[in-house]
Amino acid sequence: MKTRAAIAFGAGKPLQIAEVDLDGPKAGEVLIEIKATGVCHTDAFTLSGDDPEGAFPAILGHEGAGVVVEVGAGVTSLKPGDHVIPLYTPECRQCKFCLHPKTNLCQAIRSTQGQGVMPDGKSRFSLEGKPILHYMGCSTFSNYTVMPEIAVAKIRQDAPFDKVCYIGCGVTTGVGAVAFDAKVEPGSNVVVFGLGGIGLNVIQGAKMVGANKIIGIDTNPKKAALAKQFGATHFINPNDVENTVDAIVQLTDGGADYSFECIGNVKVMRDALECCHKGWGESYIIGVAGAGQEISTRPFQLVTGRSWKGSAFGGARGRTDVPRIVDWYMDGKINIDDLITHTMPLDDINKAFDLMHSGESIRSVVLY
Amino acid sequence: MKTRAAIAFGAGKPLQIAEVDLDGPKAGEVLIEIKATGVCHTDAFTLSGDDPEGAFPAILGHEGAGVVVEVGAGVTSLKPGDHVIPLYTPECRQCKFCLHPKTNLCQAIRSTQGQGVMPDGKSRFSLEGKPILHYMGCSTFSNYTVMPEIAVAKIRQDAPFDKVCYIGCGVTTGVGAVAFDAKVEPGSNVVVFGLGGIGLNVIQGAKMVGANKIIGIDTNPKKAALAKQFGATHFINPNDVENTVDAIVQLTDGGADYSFECIGNVKVMRDALECCHKGWGESYIIGVAGAGQEISTRPFQLVTGRSWKGSAFGGARGRTDVPRIVDWYMDGKINIDDLITHTMPLDDINKAFDLMHSGESIRSVVLY
Repeated sequence: MKTRAAIAFGAGKPLQIAEVDLDGPKAGEVLIEIKATGVCHTDAFTLSGDDPEGAFPAILGHEGAGVVVEVGAGVTSLKPGDHVIPLYTPECRQCKFCLHPKTNLCQAIRSTQGQGVMPDGKSRFSLEGKPILHYMGCSTFSNYTVMPEIAVAKIRQDAPFDKVCYIGCGVTTGVGAVAFDAKVEPGSNVVVFGLGGIGLNVIQGAKMVGANKIIGIDTNPKKAALAKQFGATHFINPNDVENTVDAIVQLTDGGADYSFECIGNVKVMRDALECCHKGWGESYIIGVAGAGQEISTRPFQLVTGRSWKGSAFGGARGRTDVPRIVDWYMDGKINIDDLITHTMPLDDINKAFDLMHSGESIRSVVLY
Repeated sequence: MKTRAAIAFGAGKPLQIAEVDLDGPKAGEVLIEIKATGVCHTDAFTLSGDDPEGAFPAILGHEGAGVVVEVGAGVTSLKPGDHVIPLYTPECRQCKFCLHPKTNLCQAIRSTQGQGVMPDGKSRFSLEGKPILHYMGCSTFSNYTVMPEIAVAKIRQDAPFDKVCYIGCGVTTGVGAVAFDAKVEPGSNVVVFGLGGIGLNVIQGAKMVGANKIIGIDTNPKKAALAKQFGATHFINPNDVENTVDAIVQLTDGGADYSFECIGNVKVMRDALECCHKGWGESYIIGVAGAGQEISTRPFQLVTGRSWKGSAFGGARGRTDVPRIVDWYMDGKINIDDLITHTMPLDDINKAFDLMHSGESIRSVVLY
């Protein structure tokens, strides 16, 4: 079949819209009509050429929502008409990782996904006979895409595609880090470094679970009002205080119970650890640091009871937890509407990247 | 009263045995007759002058066992004749730390303890009218010592002092790190870096809780037999393999579920983290690094599911957990006898330091 898609032909080049060829689903796969997709910093990171795993030409996009159109042989959990969210972190429920109680990092299709191909080692996309790579196993910058059944979360039919697509990455990464990885208890003091889309979702996750103080940290003073809208009780601009860690320790009477780094800055990661409370404070790294960069601290920080951890896709098991987060949105427990600041048709997708780089958008969503 | 004690008059000098004056217990304090005390690397660290908190003259020693002789006003949990182990980590059961479920680091008397004095800010020891400092709140290199009630664990009467004194530090630090901090599950793969007394106690802790593979790591080939005696299933000498982390990952089919660093070497701490299994491996730092040294890694190690943590006094709440560990010893669940390689009278205490530095002893115990 044919589908319209935005193609990344190379690093640093604008995406080009074209009709591409798409092979139908093979055994264990489904064909999905994407109805909406967010444009995420990770797409921009890969497009910039800085992503060591990035390969071109490819169809980017990993934050979509849509409808199952056709299922391949052996598919049992999905049928045409099902509303779904594609998952860049699948959930096969059979691998060593899925069967372990402490991780969501299903490895069933990790190697082929990293190579930009489907589990059979081939791409389903092509243009003029030449293959176009998949991206993060999703390629949601295409009106139609093919996914393995294990990488598709079935969601309720009444959830709006143009909002819940954001659950495919950003919302889950932030809210899930609080709910699934850190398991923040009611009454905890939570500190969030970096108030982009992820940081705001961490904040609203902390609010949802009943945190006490929720302290947003950002060098941009405009973030203060936004942070409070999503549940922050306090805002600290590192430029306004002598020492950010000291300011947090003072405000929390000893330090954060939980901190989250949502930037990807290794120096901030250190602050995020060291602002934690002696004895029990846990710091979670969510942001992606530049290639080769390292985090450091004195081991005394850990021996006196702080823990240094990380979170990927919010600790969510996609097929299980993504539908739950859709429920939380539909029940009004989390706010997605105000995070989606711009929408546009596929033809204007390059504007979404411009809005992101200028800091004007929190999240842009492409509607098909 | 008078008591015989070994006095550290200054950094790098041998201890001197002398009769010192000891004031009796004040309100909330008890007088203890020490019957046996281990000589630990931490005593040697302070005596060397490398300990930034070290102060002289002081009576060192923090790994003792003995009998309550006299109790001060208001003491309710102890009476003369009780067998006890002094605690350098107290358990007041009232402070913010004691009331938090995730830490054992009671802070009730932290500041005065760090200054080498009792909670009233004064020393009970003196020589020719000049005060001699307490050490780690214990000063077990003295036949009699005074302790706050909250820093004394009451133990069963049938436990031998010359063995269970080791529970006052080394045994609890190692066995407790496994049992209380890491909460190692049966079937886990455990890796232990550094097979001194602490490392061997981590190994026997891992064996006690039903670990699967228990891999001891040490550059001294003589440690292999000892490690296996205490429960190690495998031994790796880093000098015998190209890459220690790779060797561990291969042996464990992906990495350690839990690793423990028992040396204090920041490079080994990095290996201990990076040999952990993706998704869930947890690394605990027990060893004390040199002043100013830092640990480093790529944040990717944490984002992909490894956790970096620390352990102090094995996560044990002293008054609650030390008596339990005494039971484990009396029930034959852990082996202390074979770890105590030398015993000597107080007059020979400097030999204990020599045996430690030469690597000839695992633990020397001084008997009064």
